[in-house]
Amino acid sequence: MSLDKVLSRIDADLPAAIARLQDLIRIPSISTDSAYAKDVAACAAALKSDFDSLGFSTTIHPTPGHPVVVAHRPKPGAPHVLFYGHYDVQPVDPLNLWNEPPFTSKVQEIEPGRKVITGRGSADDKGQVMTFVDACRAYLKETGDLPVGVTLLIEGEEENGSINLPAFVEKHRKELKADIALVCDTGMWDGDTPAITTSLRGLVYEEIVVRCANRDLHSGLYGGAAANPAHVLARLIASLHDRNGRVRVPGFYKGVKNPSKEQLAGWKALGLTAKEFLGPIGLKHSVGEKGRDLIEHIQSRPTCDINGLWGGYTGEGSKTVIAAEARAKVSFRLVGQQDPKAISRSFAAYVKKQVPKDCSVEIIPMKGSRAVELAYDSPPLTAARRALKAEWGREPAVIGSGGSIPIVGDFKRVLGLDSVLVGFGLEGDRVHSPNEKYDLKSFHKGTRSWARILDELARIGK
Amino acid sequence: MSLDKVLSRIDADLPAAIARLQDLIRIPSISTDSAYAKDVAACAAALKSDFDSLGFSTTIHPTPGHPVVVAHRPKPGAPHVLFYGHYDVQPVDPLNLWNEPPFTSKVQEIEPGRKVITGRGSADDKGQVMTFVDACRAYLKETGDLPVGVTLLIEGEEENGSINLPAFVEKHRKELKADIALVCDTGMWDGDTPAITTSLRGLVYEEIVVRCANRDLHSGLYGGAAANPAHVLARLIASLHDRNGRVRVPGFYKGVKNPSKEQLAGWKALGLTAKEFLGPIGLKHSVGEKGRDLIEHIQSRPTCDINGLWGGYTGEGSKTVIAAEARAKVSFRLVGQQDPKAISRSFAAYVKKQVPKDCSVEIIPMKGSRAVELAYDSPPLTAARRALKAEWGREPAVIGSGGSIPIVGDFKRVLGLDSVLVGFGLEGDRVHSPNEKYDLKSFHKGTRSWARILDELARIGK
Repeated sequence: MSLDKVLSRIDADLPAAIARLQDLIRIPSISTDSAYAKDVAACAAALKSDFDSLGFSTTIHPTPGHPVVVAHRPKPGAPHVLFYGHYDVQPVDPLNLWNEPPFTSKVQEIEPGRKVITGRGSADDKGQVMTFVDACRAYLKETGDLPVGVTLLIEGEEENGSINLPAFVEKHRKELKADIALVCDTGMWDGDTPAITTSLRGLVYEEIVVRCANRDLHSGLYGGAAANPAHVLARLIASLHDRNGRVRVPGFYKGVKNPSKEQLAGWKALGLTAKEFLGPIGLKHSVGEKGRDLIEHIQSRPTCDINGLWGGYTGEGSKTVIAAEARAKVSFRLVGQQDPKAISRSFAAYVKKQVPKDCSVEIIPMKGSRAVELAYDSPPLTAARRALKAEWGREPAVIGSGGSIPIVGDFKRVLGLDSVLVGFGLEGDRVHSPNEKYDLKSFHKGTRSWARILDELARIGK
Repeated sequence: MSLDKVLSRIDADLPAAIARLQDLIRIPSISTDSAYAKDVAACAAALKSDFDSLGFSTTIHPTPGHPVVVAHRPKPGAPHVLFYGHYDVQPVDPLNLWNEPPFTSKVQEIEPGRKVITGRGSADDKGQVMTFVDACRAYLKETGDLPVGVTLLIEGEEENGSINLPAFVEKHRKELKADIALVCDTGMWDGDTPAITTSLRGLVYEEIVVRCANRDLHSGLYGGAAANPAHVLARLIASLHDRNGRVRVPGFYKGVKNPSKEQLAGWKALGLTAKEFLGPIGLKHSVGEKGRDLIEHIQSRPTCDINGLWGGYTGEGSKTVIAAEARAKVSFRLVGQQDPKAISRSFAAYVKKQVPKDCSVEIIPMKGSRAVELAYDSPPLTAARRALKAEWGREPAVIGSGGSIPIVGDFKRVLGLDSVLVGFGLEGDRVHSPNEKYDLKSFHKGTRSWARILDELARIGK
C-alpha cells in the first residue's frame, strides 16, 4: 500500500525536512514593516524554487503589497484541493526577550524526549506550511504522483491582514478553482489530541491618536492646566469595558449568537479549566464576560484588546513632559454575524464622543474581517477526521478558534469553497511572542497527517 | 559711573557672547541618558576653561553621577553671592519634530525685530547661566573686578532630579558659604515684564510597571480571557483624578494651603486668562480643579501628570499581541507642606489596590522634593526688584512657578541661604520640547539685568 511507503519516506526524510524549514526561518519575512520587503520577496523566491523542484508549476504574483506564490499540480479525474498558508511572519520586538536571535533556528530538547524547532515563523506559519509541502514531497518521491490535484496558495501578507489577497482571489478565481480548501494555520487541542477548527473569530484593528496641545509641554509650567493626551487616552481605554467585562461600544453585540446547547455541551465535555488554560501563562482568572464559561470567552464571544499604547517620554530616567499626543492600537475579535464595518463606524463615533472638546482624535483603520463558521459534518471534514484519528490514535477535537483567518470567508464567498482547517500548533508555541517554537512532533506527525488526509480525500472522490 | 561702562561693554560684546553660548549648545549634555555621559563631562570641562579664563578658581567635582562645576572669586569685605545654574539638558525626542538638529544653534528672526537663539539648552539652562557669567565677564573686562564676591555652582544633573547635589552641598557647605543665593532657571512674566519667583512646586516622579501574563500573548488565542496590562494601566491612570480634577491618592492634599487673600488679589491683578496662557499651545480650557482660577492651577495647586506610557506593539502596521507588561512615568507637582515621601508611600499603596490579583505592579521611585516658598520682601529681593525695574522700565512681577528647583530648599536647609530667583525664559521657549529657543532680548537684557543686580547687591553691603 503506497500510503505506508509514503509515511516511511516522511520518517526517513525528517532530518532533511527540518533543515529545509530552518532555511526558510532564516529569511526575516516580516510583512508589516516595509524595511523587510526584500526579505519577504526572497522568501517567496525560495518557495517557488522548492515547489518547482517538486514538479509544481509555480508563479510569483506581484500585488500592491507582498507577492502571492501559486503552484499547480493538476490531476484530471481526481478531486482538486487548494492549500492555503502564509510565508510572512510577525515582527520580533521586544528583541531583548529572545533567548536566541529570532531568525536563527535550532532543534532543542526542552524536556526529556520533547524536541522543538525554534525561531520566528517556526510555527506561524512556515512550519505548518511545510507539513503539507513535505507530505506532497513524500508522495512525489515515493510514487511519482499525488493522490489528488493540488494548488498551493501561499501568501505574504497574512500578518498584515491579508490586505491584497481578497482582490487577488477574485481576479484569479478560475485559476484557483478546486473542490475543497485546506488551511494549515491553526492548532491542536493539546499535545496528543489533534483538532479541526470549524469557526474563526473576525477582526477589526485600528490605531487611535489623541492630540491635545500643539506641542510637547513642560509639565511644571503647564501641568494642572493643560489637557494631557495620556490621561485622555487612558480614560478612553478604561471606558471600553463595563464592570461585567462587556464592550461598551454601541451596537457591538449585534449579530452575536449564543452557542447551541449541543455546541456548549461538546465544549463542556472538553473540560477546559482556567488553571489549565491560563496557568501556563501565569494567570488564574479569565477577564471575560461574567456569567460565561472560559471556553466561550476564547471561542464564541467577541473581544476588545489594546495591542499597543505609547506617548510621551519612554526612555531611561525621567522627563517632565506633557506630550502633544498619545496613541493606541486597538483590536476587536468578532464572532457570528458581527459586521466589521459597522463596528468600525460605531467605534469611531464612540471614541470621538469620549474626547474633550479641546483635544482631537484620529482613527487609522488597519484591518477588518468577519467571523467564519464552517460545516461540522461535510464529507471532506469527515475524511480529515478519519485521517487524524488514524495518525494520532484518538478522535480529533472539533473546535472554534479565537484567532482570525479572513481568507477562509473569501474562499466561500468568491470561490464557493468550503475549507477544512487542520493545524498542529500548540498553546505554548509563543506565536507572535519572543521565542516562538514548533514541536518536532507537530512537524513530523503533522506531515504524516496530511499524507493521510490526501489519501482519504482521494478515496471520497470528486 | 562704572555700571554704565559695564552695560556698554555687554552691548558691544553681544555677538561674541552669542557665539560662546552656541558653542555650549553644541555639546549634547543630556544627563538622563547614560549614552551622553562623555558629552556631559565635556560640557563641564568647557565651563571650567571659560571660568578660569575670567580669573575664577574652578574645580570640576566628580559625583556618583555627573560632575559639579564650582568656581570662586572672593571679594573680602563685600557681600558674597552663590550663583546656581545647570549645564545639563533634557532629552530631545521626538527627534522628528525638530526643524533643525537639536544640538546645532542658529540666530533666527522669528518675527520682525524679534530674534531668537535656537537649540536644546538655549533657554534651559545654558542661555540663562551665561547671562550671569557674561555680566561677570563685562565687569572683569571693564573694571578688573566684580562688585561682590561670587561663587558659581553649575551642576550637571538638574534634569535628572539633582540626585547627587544635596549630598554635594552638604559635604561642601563651608566652601559654598555665601550671603545670598542667586538662581537663574525661571522665566519672565511676559516678553516685556521681568519676574522674580518666590515659590516653586515640589516633585514626586515615579515609574510604574504593570505585569499580567508571564509572556506576550497572541490576542486571538488568549484575547477575552487573559488580563491585558494596557487595560489595567489605563484604568489605573483614569482613576487618578475624580470628576472635579482632584487627585484621588489618599492624603494627597495634606499640607496644601489656600493662598492668602493678598496673594490671590495680586495674582488676579495680573489678569491671566485661559486664552492668553493656553491659546498659544492650541488649548482653550484648563483641566485643573473645578472652582479654582487658572493661576492657582499652575502655581499654587498640586498636580498629577503622566509623562510617558508604553506597552505592547508600537511599530508600523499591526501586531495582534497582548503584552506581558505596560509602563507609565507619573509625576506629581507639590505645593506648601506636602511631603514627597508620604505621597510616594500613599501612591504605592493606592496603585497596588487598583491592580487585579492576577497581575502585579512594580513602582520605581525616581525623584522627590518639597515645594519651596521664599520671603517676599528681603533686602536682596528688593535690590533685585530695583535693578530689574531700571533695566526693563517696569515693576517686575513677583510670582510662583509651577516648576521645581529642589536645590533651593537645600540651600535654605543646609547653607541657611535665602535665594533670589530671577530668570528670563518665556512661555514660548519650548523648554523640554522640540525646537527649544531663547529670545535674544532675554539673553541680552538678562545679562544687563544681572550686571545691575550685582551693582545693587554691592550697595546694600554685607
